[in-house]
Amino acid sequence: MSSLKSTVEEELIAAIRNIPDYPKPGIVFRDITTLLGNPRAFRRAVDELVHPYAGIGVAKVAGIEARGFILGGAMAHQLSTGFVPIRKKGKLPHETVRIAYSLEYGVDEMEMHKDAVKPGEKVILVDDLIATGGTAEAAVKLLRQMGADIVAACFVIDLPGLGGRRKLEALGVEVRTLISFEGD
Amino acid sequence: MSSLKSTVEEELIAAIRNIPDYPKPGIVFRDITTLLGNPRAFRRAVDELVHPYAGIGVAKVAGIEARGFILGGAMAHQLSTGFVPIRKKGKLPHETVRIAYSLEYGVDEMEMHKDAVKPGEKVILVDDLIATGGTAEAAVKLLRQMGADIVAACFVIDLPGLGGRRKLEALGVEVRTLISFEGD
Repeated sequence: MSSLKSTVEEELIAAIRNIPDYPKPGIVFRDITTLLGNPRAFRRAVDELVHPYAGIGVAKVAGIEARGFILGGAMAHQLSTGFVPIRKKGKLPHETVRIAYSLEYGVDEMEMHKDAVKPGEKVILVDDLIATGGTAEAAVKLLRQMGADIVAACFVIDLPGLGGRRKLEALGVEVRTLISFEGD
Repeated sequence: MSSLKSTVEEELIAAIRNIPDYPKPGIVFRDITTLLGNPRAFRRAVDELVHPYAGIGVAKVAGIEARGFILGGAMAHQLSTGFVPIRKKGKLPHETVRIAYSLEYGVDEMEMHKDAVKPGEKVILVDDLIATGGTAEAAVKLLRQMGADIVAACFVIDLPGLGGRRKLEALGVEVRTLISFEGD
């Protein structure tokens, strides 16, 4: 990303709250709740994420629990698509497919309903932030297992130093992000 | 609710999946994920929930984790308001206010950021379903503790037999729901 940031980027960066030493010393946590709480910034972020994908036949927006639900609900409504929740295990009431993924310490599992996506449907994946990309990679695999055609993976924040974008691009997924914190 | 249901109600009821004996024998679980996944039903539900509140100066839509995030994100975007997450304890990175509430067995706590709502701001509360109303009541108290003026509490599904609507109305909160399952 060039150092000449656009007006939208500047506005969104200004709406993020930086919390030093959270969740542990040396880490700057990028708190998106202040952006979500700002009517203009929230609307801007959602509209910027979806605009390349309007009118191309997207069927579903799939959001990763929990902050991906907030953005994904707004995106699905704006594009007039359905919304698919990708949840932590044990939260969905019907038949699911499940995948394990690595966390910093240990592993966790996420799942989606088996009938949430039909084979060949165009799907946009969304979460608030991409860091190492482990969660997003698992979500991509889960969606593809059900035959989804993933049009793009969208995130408000990219932490490019942690390699998540490259990981998704290596899987052939288009990645769209709005702002980037290089040093993280 | 009269037995002459409107077209919107019929459409939304048809989009709900009923799962018998979940999470335990004798309970019919009302699964909203099929409604969320249906582009027309999802759009209808969001638009119906918000339309009485457009243009009256609502500042924030507050969604209860996790399904309230999906609807709330869409509602906030549609109304051009900010979004406020009300989360299970320990998930928010900045200073919070917290409240305990009763579950069927035991208690839990929810919290929101202290600066998420300014005194006097008009707020709409949203979740997918109101049953006993314990969670929604706690959310109302939390929002009022920060000075919010609660314009309405919105839910797609009402289970009127469980008394949640009456509980909120007794607190002076306007309750808006779209469909109702009398027998639950």
